[in-house]
Amino acid sequence: MTDGDAPEFRHHSMMETPFQVIDHIAVAVPDLNGAGSMWTERCGVDLEGREHVASQSVEVGFVECANARIELVAPASSSTPISRFLTSRGPGLHHIAFCVADIDEALSWCRAHELRLLDEKGRPGAEGRRVAFLHPSAFGGVLVELCEGKA
Amino acid sequence: MTDGDAPEFRHHSMMETPFQVIDHIAVAVPDLNGAGSMWTERCGVDLEGREHVASQSVEVGFVECANARIELVAPASSSTPISRFLTSRGPGLHHIAFCVADIDEALSWCRAHELRLLDEKGRPGAEGRRVAFLHPSAFGGVLVELCEGKA
Repeated sequence: MTDGDAPEFRHHSMMETPFQVIDHIAVAVPDLNGAGSMWTERCGVDLEGREHVASQSVEVGFVECANARIELVAPASSSTPISRFLTSRGPGLHHIAFCVADIDEALSWCRAHELRLLDEKGRPGAEGRRVAFLHPSAFGGVLVELCEGKA
Repeated sequence: MTDGDAPEFRHHSMMETPFQVIDHIAVAVPDLNGAGSMWTERCGVDLEGREHVASQSVEVGFVECANARIELVAPASSSTPISRFLTSRGPGLHHIAFCVADIDEALSWCRAHELRLLDEKGRPGAEGRRVAFLHPSAFGGVLVELCEGKA
């Protein structure tokens, strides 16, 4: 059994924007232990970077694929957005995160392009990075996160 | 405005599985023209590979990010799974697709690991590739697709 070759990305940006490098794809899970075992078994890797993110009251861990990462996000308390998502929609795909060099500059870009924000400035996220979420309406229903700097 | 550097992927597979290279992340959209304009403007790229996939009765197009691709999927008729998804949940993240070298071998791996399948064998997908979907229960609620060969 061999995995497929990585696709040849034909990215050729015509314009620099904050939405060009995917940092991770996040999956809402009820329980990080159970979901972590399942995903790491399927993907043949360890769960990386497990931590409690106090500012969002979640527990996260990363499944590192060859070309992008899957973030598993579990609620650490019952009144968080992730808990509400799980209650209303069940476990599943939750958001896409993009890497940016400077989150203040990225949020300015968003405001200049009239993209509605959930976070007006960066706040502490996983891996010691500053993060900010856009309102899902900014991407037609998809929740998008910005993460500053490298993981 | 500069985009962030790509994260340094620390992928070190302990075991080869069909779920190691992300081919694309799919977003269900009601209308490919409208969503295509929105995503390409946000991401600063053109919409690539637009086509009608008759076997699934969908229209697709790809937004090529630096390290992975976002597939926009719109219904081409009203009785498709994508139409039902849009009706029940609205536009949003729909599935993750992984690249595999050989889809028959990948589906055999899935059966050997008791992963429930929606497609027992590969069928024609976008870009002239053979594809197969797993049942969402195989990944705890996340719909996963396998795509054979390179895009």
